Amino acid sequence: MFIHTTTYRVRYADTDQMGYVYYGNYARLYEIGRVEALRSLGFSYKEMEVSGVMMPVYENKSRFIAPAFYDELLTIKTTIQALPAARMVFYYEILNGSEKNVNIGETTLVFVKMENNRLTTAPKDLLAKLCPYFEK
Amino acid sequence: MFIHTTTYRVRYADTDQMGYVYYGNYARLYEIGRVEALRSLGFSYKEMEVSGVMMPVYENKSRFIAPAFYDELLTIKTTIQALPAARMVFYYEILNGSEKNVNIGETTLVFVKMENNRLTTAPKDLLAKLCPYFEK
Amino acid sequence: MFIHTTTYRVRYADTDQMGYVYYGNYARLYEIGRVEALRSLGFSYKEMEVSGVMMPVYENKSRFIAPAFYDELLTIKTTIQALPAARMVFYYEILNGSEKNVNIGETTLVFVKMENNRLTTAPKDLLAKLCPYFEK
Amino acid sequence: MFIHTTTYRVRYADTDQMGYVYYGNYARLYEIGRVEALRSLGFSYKEMEVSGVMMPVYENKSRFIAPAFYDELLTIKTTIQALPAARMVFYYEILNGSEKNVNIGETTLVFVKMENNRLTTAPKDLLAKLCPYFEK
Repeated sequence: MFIHTTTYRVRYADTDQMGYVYYGNYARLYEIGRVEALRSLGFSYKEMEVSGVMMPVYENKSRFIAPAFYDELLTIKTTIQALPAARMVFYYEILNGSEKNVNIGETTLVFVKMENNRLTTAPKDLLAKLCPYFEK
Repeated sequence: MFIHTTTYRVRYADTDQMGYVYYGNYARLYEIGRVEALRSLGFSYKEMEVSGVMMPVYENKSRFIAPAFYDELLTIKTTIQALPAARMVFYYEILNGSEKNVNIGETTLVFVKMENNRLTTAPKDLLAKLCPYFEK
Repeated sequence: MFIHTTTYRVRYADTDQMGYVYYGNYARLYEIGRVEALRSLGFSYKEMEVSGVMMPVYENKSRFIAPAFYDELLTIKTTIQALPAARMVFYYEILNGSEKNVNIGETTLVFVKMENNRLTTAPKDLLAKLCPYFEK
Repeated sequence: MFIHTTTYRVRYADTDQMGYVYYGNYARLYEIGRVEALRSLGFSYKEMEVSGVMMPVYENKSRFIAPAFYDELLTIKTTIQALPAARMVFYYEILNGSEKNVNIGETTLVFVKMENNRLTTAPKDLLAKLCPYFEK
């Protein structure tokens, strides 16, 4: 299992007239969580794309437990529970400044070769970076 | 059961560098689907808020079946399968110009009294508008 | 001179906690205004891109005269005051349901050949569609 | 004169199908620039709102000098050139990782008392924080 945390400051751009972070804007937080989780492993999503593999989202789920408010410094906790094969799943917990869990989410992504737009499996260098966290 | 369809033109603002509609932007399409479904019943979400009840999102799920592209005229098909009580669930299918299903989704919303921020049940006038579609 | 109007319904996604349309979201309205203005002329921005020319934004200016609110049906009035050469300028007026002007804006775009990423001039078929509106 | 710099990582959510940061998304960068500039002075925009004064945007101008790309770590340089009275103007320069200026902008905001929705002047505590930077 691999766990990574980063922070995100809520901006006016993220809020709606309820005064909450708009439900569609959590997708941005999840994106930040998973990309920074990979970067902390020494793996760059951008370089993977340059090398010809992209990761479109296949499924996304969110549960909204409590509102997140303007200017809060949220913690995005991202967990990878299994080594990816054809798919890669990221789990998220979003915590506010009082350590309260405001949102949980889960995104499943697939690997696509850009040259032929076909599904592929996780790149070897991604697996190499992740493996140490999944050995017994 | 109540079914409603409306259309949505994909804008540059919706796309990402993959050339797809960014996964977080489907939340906007779902919002349009459910608000226009209610409007077609003669029920205004805005007026409900003015009367003191709001509907924050409790859960959201999306499956991304195929990419949606810039300038496509998408069809948003919104379905209400059951009369709401404490919660209201909307189901969506997003179809592209070739009638291909590109995305399916599901949003669960709750009813909150704005004066005390407490959960409540579906307003009577909403139920009155919906009832004819759920009678045997 | 060429003038075109279209409408836009304000969504929750567009609002911020002030209860106003967030200032950055007018860019989307301007995009809708200019693309629909061109479409009404029989000119497709998308097809121009497919043919190898794109139009990145060079300059954008907005003045916020009054707030626009959730669920308002805004009118986007787009004006082309001169035939484009190296640049194309669009002017916008955003009106609310009471015909009050809530926002004015102006976007300057340039033409870029995608094959070499170089500046070019307005495509001939765009000029052909616009010319009738600029003859004496 | 007061100058502040902060950084911003470009996300997929910010890009469009041209592979550039969408022109409307610079408004978010400007917001981050000015709020963090004020925070660095010990002034919280959020607390000002809690105390009953908000700052809607009156005017916004952007010039797009070069594209900004996915995953770039941009520098947002925010400058306050004059003490605010009825209005407050922020100037921005957005630099990419090669120190190239990709965008310049300027936002004028006004002060509004939330209790009566009327224009007011800059709060005293904001002026107190800024004054040291504008003395001869």
